[in-house]
Amino acid sequence: MLITLTTDFGTSDWFTGSMKGVISGISPATRIIDITHQVPPGNLVDGAFTLAASSPYFPAGTIHIAVVDPGVGSARRAITLRTRSAIFIGPDNGVLSWAVREQQIEEVRILNNEDWFLEPVSRTFHGRDIFAPAAARLAAGARFDEAGDTIEDFVRLPWPEVTEGDHEVRGEVVHIDRFGNAISNLPASVFPGELLDSGGITIMCGGRPAPLRHSYTDVHLGKPLALMGSSGLLELAINGDDFAEQNGIEVGSPVRAKW
Amino acid sequence: MLITLTTDFGTSDWFTGSMKGVISGISPATRIIDITHQVPPGNLVDGAFTLAASSPYFPAGTIHIAVVDPGVGSARRAITLRTRSAIFIGPDNGVLSWAVREQQIEEVRILNNEDWFLEPVSRTFHGRDIFAPAAARLAAGARFDEAGDTIEDFVRLPWPEVTEGDHEVRGEVVHIDRFGNAISNLPASVFPGELLDSGGITIMCGGRPAPLRHSYTDVHLGKPLALMGSSGLLELAINGDDFAEQNGIEVGSPVRAKW
Amino acid sequence: MLITLTTDFGTSDWFTGSMKGVISGISPATRIIDITHQVPPGNLVDGAFTLAASSPYFPAGTIHIAVVDPGVGSARRAITLRTRSAIFIGPDNGVLSWAVREQQIEEVRILNNEDWFLEPVSRTFHGRDIFAPAAARLAAGARFDEAGDTIEDFVRLPWPEVTEGDHEVRGEVVHIDRFGNAISNLPASVFPGELLDSGGITIMCGGRPAPLRHSYTDVHLGKPLALMGSSGLLELAINGDDFAEQNGIEVGSPVRAKW
Repeated sequence: MLITLTTDFGTSDWFTGSMKGVISGISPATRIIDITHQVPPGNLVDGAFTLAASSPYFPAGTIHIAVVDPGVGSARRAITLRTRSAIFIGPDNGVLSWAVREQQIEEVRILNNEDWFLEPVSRTFHGRDIFAPAAARLAAGARFDEAGDTIEDFVRLPWPEVTEGDHEVRGEVVHIDRFGNAISNLPASVFPGELLDSGGITIMCGGRPAPLRHSYTDVHLGKPLALMGSSGLLELAINGDDFAEQNGIEVGSPVRAKW
Repeated sequence: MLITLTTDFGTSDWFTGSMKGVISGISPATRIIDITHQVPPGNLVDGAFTLAASSPYFPAGTIHIAVVDPGVGSARRAITLRTRSAIFIGPDNGVLSWAVREQQIEEVRILNNEDWFLEPVSRTFHGRDIFAPAAARLAAGARFDEAGDTIEDFVRLPWPEVTEGDHEVRGEVVHIDRFGNAISNLPASVFPGELLDSGGITIMCGGRPAPLRHSYTDVHLGKPLALMGSSGLLELAINGDDFAEQNGIEVGSPVRAKW
Repeated sequence: MLITLTTDFGTSDWFTGSMKGVISGISPATRIIDITHQVPPGNLVDGAFTLAASSPYFPAGTIHIAVVDPGVGSARRAITLRTRSAIFIGPDNGVLSWAVREQQIEEVRILNNEDWFLEPVSRTFHGRDIFAPAAARLAAGARFDEAGDTIEDFVRLPWPEVTEGDHEVRGEVVHIDRFGNAISNLPASVFPGELLDSGGITIMCGGRPAPLRHSYTDVHLGKPLALMGSSGLLELAINGDDFAEQNGIEVGSPVRAKW
């Protein structure tokens, strides 16, 4: 069994290590894979996007823990979602919601089976005391319905709006990656299919028009371009440089495509 | 078997990768878990605290390597400690000592069995050449007494002093975490039990008085508070912000609680 | 089986997590070890050095993936190299070449077996779509010759020149590690063997002469020294401080040893 971890815990403390210790104690054969622990502190949108971008690449049955949890210790619920291909565990604040945005959800449960908790449950670290043990129990073979009571609703983050116009479409930047590439919320499906291949689409993001191309090296070094990125979304880049930094782009910056 | 790694090696070089390669060659079935490699270079206190905070959450028999080793290649000894529940391996400079501060130590040995070393032993990287192979041998089933000669003493870092006064207690900050929370050396046991629940304790750290609460969201966004953290120690925080940065707090900054 | 990862992907996105998901789906029993993901973006030399420094410490049969790939999506080839002791997988841009610089290469193949690709192959993330699945297939037992067509040549990065003179040798800095130690391209073999032990060699790097010593603590705190480092190369350091920062040293800075 596989458990993945997506958190805003950083890597300079022992937080993720403690979670792995707890998992290993309950389910020694389970393998644990870090997605990232560098979600900006408390940034639900970034955590949700990261989980949605990575979870499709894991084998069926993988259990994904996401902990971006500024409300830890408050009344916010701890939940687990089951789809046909994966289980998701985390706080009910929307961080899990984009990963299941286009999937059928089989079951949602609150994690309120206290027999599964690590005692005593701290008020500040449910990653270690609630989410990790729940994932480990499920990985070790516990039934999903033992996790807690079933619920119908859970918190969903709104996906940023895509506005389709006359020979244009508007969206926004949803993630800036390590290379400074700005990933938008615009999927291939909002563009005329023939233009995706042939070119003729121009993207405005930060004032500099960028042509739609296929790969970074399709433009000269230092020149901007747009391409359909590896997550299936339009992204803005500079060949050999940092697009976001060069153009003052942030998450939420508007993106406009014309043809 | 599980081996954990706590180092100041960072993650931008190949140092921890090489250690894992050495372990995997000697004991292929052993799983390796990173606690952190972001201990500030040479900071024994931070390494010792990290190991002490994380090791209790690992299953019995786990082998913990800690390498914060500014004296590598000098006369400082390489040691291994065995408690009832874990084995600790590292330089004899105190980095292991807080993890066993409240535990009974069954045995201490110098790592001087040269048959266990990776040859040639470098003068600068005992993590790879001495600590990793020793941990891997033990994980693979070697007897603890093969590690080297038994010794009685080892270097212990002093735990920062807690001063209990009349309706007050004084300590200091021992760690600042990724979120800017300042963790003190004050455990719950130094406070009147009834006030821990009911409130009425005020903490001074950096000039701003902070009330003792249960969770971050018990105060308004941007307001300071103190709470008993997940390591069982009093910590100072701001709901939604970085306490240490906002207040100029560092490791060693004084903390004073009054009631 | 073991797969290692050396990339410039950083750890703040989901890129390495996705690669691990793909590997786990194809070859569930394979263990994955991170060397580093902090190669500076697009820095082939740093990636090549990191792979060369770490790969010798892994057990025979280990499969090493290196992805520093500024030309992804262009005509650059994807390749795999097999030596007697390891398999290397990555773009054919030199990033693999230093790891096999002194080894006999048994076979080189282009990764052009499309049955092995993750479909659809993106234009920007061959780590996930080509390199990870190829490594996983080989780890799972696929024959090396199924990877693709055999080729003779591949791109080799030049190893920076070592100039041996009269009682002196000149080279350059090839890597600066997390502690600020500056690792040069000068191996022990270019120095008179007796002087390596007895001293009498002085190193100039950044203007301050540094004596050749055995370990960091052989000089007073704050003083510079040189020593034969754990990679078998001469390195410059300051006991307890950051040599590169204090001396304005960068990769490529000249190093001169005299005796």
